[in-house]
Amino acid sequence: MNKKELIDQIRIKKSFLCIGLDTDISKIPKFLLEFEDPVFEFNKRIIDSTKDLCVAYKPNIAFYEAMGAKGWESLKKTVDYIPKDIFTIADAKRGDIGNTSKKYAQTFFSTYNFDSITVAPYMGIDSLIPFLNFKNKWTIVLGLTSNEGSNSFQNLALKNGKKLYQEVIKVSSEWGNSENMMYVVGATKANDLKQIRKTLPKHFFLIPGIGAQGGDLKEVINNGINQDIGLLINSSRGIIYAGDQENFDLKSREEALKIQQEMSKYL
Amino acid sequence: MNKKELIDQIRIKKSFLCIGLDTDISKIPKFLLEFEDPVFEFNKRIIDSTKDLCVAYKPNIAFYEAMGAKGWESLKKTVDYIPKDIFTIADAKRGDIGNTSKKYAQTFFSTYNFDSITVAPYMGIDSLIPFLNFKNKWTIVLGLTSNEGSNSFQNLALKNGKKLYQEVIKVSSEWGNSENMMYVVGATKANDLKQIRKTLPKHFFLIPGIGAQGGDLKEVINNGINQDIGLLINSSRGIIYAGDQENFDLKSREEALKIQQEMSKYL
Repeated sequence: MNKKELIDQIRIKKSFLCIGLDTDISKIPKFLLEFEDPVFEFNKRIIDSTKDLCVAYKPNIAFYEAMGAKGWESLKKTVDYIPKDIFTIADAKRGDIGNTSKKYAQTFFSTYNFDSITVAPYMGIDSLIPFLNFKNKWTIVLGLTSNEGSNSFQNLALKNGKKLYQEVIKVSSEWGNSENMMYVVGATKANDLKQIRKTLPKHFFLIPGIGAQGGDLKEVINNGINQDIGLLINSSRGIIYAGDQENFDLKSREEALKIQQEMSKYL
Repeated sequence: MNKKELIDQIRIKKSFLCIGLDTDISKIPKFLLEFEDPVFEFNKRIIDSTKDLCVAYKPNIAFYEAMGAKGWESLKKTVDYIPKDIFTIADAKRGDIGNTSKKYAQTFFSTYNFDSITVAPYMGIDSLIPFLNFKNKWTIVLGLTSNEGSNSFQNLALKNGKKLYQEVIKVSSEWGNSENMMYVVGATKANDLKQIRKTLPKHFFLIPGIGAQGGDLKEVINNGINQDIGLLINSSRGIIYAGDQENFDLKSREEALKIQQEMSKYL
């Protein structure tokens, strides 16, 4: 999916919601465990009940990987099931030397046919280029994350006056453009988001940390929005685990709807 | 495997060689493609022919992941096949927010039963703690990598006078100890290695970049060795792709033997 198509979807659906499919078999409603593939069955119902309210789905790969080969099968079925007009994000946070990153890019862009993948920047330019070399695919770089540990290194003061995350964003943005790169910017850092938007006026930002991690939706939108919206705001646990009974998918829909309605005010 | 057991193995085998099982199905000898699981068949023969010469095997997960669910089955069979007195490293370079890193830790430490995993430090303390919480397992943090892109960020000058990688190593080393943490230090950075050894006199370093990436073995040993040896020096492509005929495993053995014989001089 290219940038124009993504923006079109945002305008059609009046939503820039991304739903995180962080599906943990120990947390899904118990009645699903009778199905052959409970994780896929859960995802399928979440997708069916929310697909008109969101523009992106983001499975966090850790939850699938933890189940071994079976988890990867559930992941494949899930990605194949997501309608083609919805943007897909492999939240994988990969990154390695060039020939190895190329393999990761093949995995998520070819084998699994995701539109995008999240990547970690520490290994630098040749760890990102293999992802950027894929046409019509997106590389989403960790900029400033929403977790407590983001303070360990991302905020380090550099000799040039910048913070590490600012340098990471500025430097890496020159390896691609706003048509093939996005940045992860945690919702728990609203003031920093404002600053990052100044640095990158045209890029999309993937914003985690709404809900369970404490980020405020309105504040994030006000600080991060650009003329194309330029935001994909993610909610995972707050939506997918809203219910734990047979009607869990309706509970998820209710939570997604609340966020979509707030977003619609900006569209 | 704990630190004492690892050091014992190094002394018994007179080797601190780690062999990287970066098995790419497009690069293995063609005759293996007739087997049901060519990747596992290749690894099995490499392990059979080199297991007395090395103390660690390090599959890079990207190569398995790229094959989908089938690749993960090959990986599982490979890890299960490695003799229990050989240290296993999941070269996965993972790292995410706490509850997600916990899933990655479960994957590699429980589901796949690796002794250790490589992790990326950018997301900070809570991205590493879930790995460190596993008893008798090791967390191997990216310190200074061997690739060209390591210059993008790892060498950035901080306001406190240090380089980023020095701060990453110093700060993160306080989250664990030399019994449960190691660091990746690229062999292409011999002078920096000397400095890092001063900072961390007791830790093991995993050294990639010998061979294909240009690092010099003797220089690395002289700059990095400590009283316990304290080094696991990795070679991947130089060993596993030494031959491309039916006797490829013997060619691999010859290459591994050359390195082991050089190492034995220090033991």
